[in-house]
Amino acid sequence: MQRMVVVSIAEQEWVEPLSDVPGVEVVHWDMKADPPRDDIEVVVPPYMGNPKRLERLAQLPKLQAVQLVTAGYEHAIPYLPDGVQLANGRGIHDTSTAELAVGLAIAAQRGIAEAVRAQPEGDWLRMAGRPSLADRHALVIGYGSIGRALAKRLLAFEVEVTAVASKPRDGDELVDRVHGIDELPDLLPQHDVVFLIVPLTDATRHLVDADFLAAMPPNALLVNVARGGVVDTDALVEACAAGRVRAALDVTEPEPLPQEHPLWRTQGVLITPHVGGATTAFTPRALRLLRTELRRYAAGEPLQNPVR
Amino acid sequence: MQRMVVVSIAEQEWVEPLSDVPGVEVVHWDMKADPPRDDIEVVVPPYMGNPKRLERLAQLPKLQAVQLVTAGYEHAIPYLPDGVQLANGRGIHDTSTAELAVGLAIAAQRGIAEAVRAQPEGDWLRMAGRPSLADRHALVIGYGSIGRALAKRLLAFEVEVTAVASKPRDGDELVDRVHGIDELPDLLPQHDVVFLIVPLTDATRHLVDADFLAAMPPNALLVNVARGGVVDTDALVEACAAGRVRAALDVTEPEPLPQEHPLWRTQGVLITPHVGGATTAFTPRALRLLRTELRRYAAGEPLQNPVR
Repeated sequence: MQRMVVVSIAEQEWVEPLSDVPGVEVVHWDMKADPPRDDIEVVVPPYMGNPKRLERLAQLPKLQAVQLVTAGYEHAIPYLPDGVQLANGRGIHDTSTAELAVGLAIAAQRGIAEAVRAQPEGDWLRMAGRPSLADRHALVIGYGSIGRALAKRLLAFEVEVTAVASKPRDGDELVDRVHGIDELPDLLPQHDVVFLIVPLTDATRHLVDADFLAAMPPNALLVNVARGGVVDTDALVEACAAGRVRAALDVTEPEPLPQEHPLWRTQGVLITPHVGGATTAFTPRALRLLRTELRRYAAGEPLQNPVR
Repeated sequence: MQRMVVVSIAEQEWVEPLSDVPGVEVVHWDMKADPPRDDIEVVVPPYMGNPKRLERLAQLPKLQAVQLVTAGYEHAIPYLPDGVQLANGRGIHDTSTAELAVGLAIAAQRGIAEAVRAQPEGDWLRMAGRPSLADRHALVIGYGSIGRALAKRLLAFEVEVTAVASKPRDGDELVDRVHGIDELPDLLPQHDVVFLIVPLTDATRHLVDADFLAAMPPNALLVNVARGGVVDTDALVEACAAGRVRAALDVTEPEPLPQEHPLWRTQGVLITPHVGGATTAFTPRALRLLRTELRRYAAGEPLQNPVR
């Protein structure tokens, strides 16, 4: 008989859907208390919640792997026992986040926000001749899994896409090449829509500062679906208030944005409350990845999304 | 030397870009006055403006073809002299209209409209877990050139697309088959987003009536980028006010929608002021089609978009 791998899952409602993965016994553990048994080999921590709960990983003598359902994994590293594998949720959030990024860009380009604001007054705005999203030259800064999902959608809209990552590299089936982030000073003036989908690191904190914004063409659009800290908020408020650029932001710094923050009421700024990944698209894609990863682990194959 | 075909173009700024089409002499004629010469063989009427101007087609003894830049052509038929070909602008508006349709759907699904309304108050809404556009089952009612452009974009967003046209037919590279409009009573309850992109005809007027709306699943979304008259506005106001369905409308009946019309202030309704085709995407695509059509005509080839 095949040895059963004991896997803990933090979300109660995912236990049953994953219970038929071959070679795996799934138990529920939300990590708020001690583990329910000591033979857990793979832990799937909670999607949300205090990272400090991960301290309890140290209580598992047989722990071999931690499988996250977030794309970020830096929060888990301090709690990872020696020799334990870490895999992230790369791919789970592509669909939902790329969808919102495109939706924000179309809403900003096509005047959907103005139309919503005009609706209570019954004001049939005249706004023919605006720039479509089609034909725009878009920079996708951050060309990981979500960046590629975004590029794929933008290409379906007849957008000219330029991809940027931390280092230059060869292209893929979507773009001819991936530019390095050092090339931004040359690239920014050529692009009228800029999408941010980089991880927040020391290298990307306040990547979008006054100089970055000044290099964007007049009336260009910044779309941030990464993290608020990638943008210097004060510099953005200044550039938008001056009518130089526009912004559509799903993330802000600070977050939640305080009620009295000037960003809320700056012209040309559209804000959604960090809902990039938080839709019905999440659960089926999380379950699909977990099913793959648990099947692979039980079969002795390498995990699909190792990060460490 | 090749015979030069004299072509009149209503938009002054298109004369020069088309002047290098081989075998064609382009003249400007906006049709507001008598024709500038009597040897015009092909007329490109104005994009907008009173169809009555087309009466002046009768003044052209050598007229062979009328090339429209609109998708609709019914307005031109009463003025078309016997034996004169008519071609429409099929394809010109696909990009801009499909883009807005998807943008409206994402805005409605992802809460962009609510976020815009909450912005003046600085209200960071809690709206996690909403239905993405991805994974929705969408009906595309009207599967011509724009309908296909829309389906292509929806598929890039991982939407399940069902196409409907006046008659059932085989599918294409996007959909397995095209359903007939008679199948709507069976299809509507299975689809949570409905896109309208049919021409307005006697058969489609008030296609969306109280019965249609009652057959949609609870909280389903209707997106109208066709013509306002395809929807019975009173029935829509009633269904939305009752919280049964939602609507995102680029077209209304009447239009412009009067300031005091209840549709403006009905819950779950998002309205843009008929800007589906009216963007920067229009001119380059109009010029591309005209260039093709004029080159074909001058070379003695059939027009690409004949409608009559």
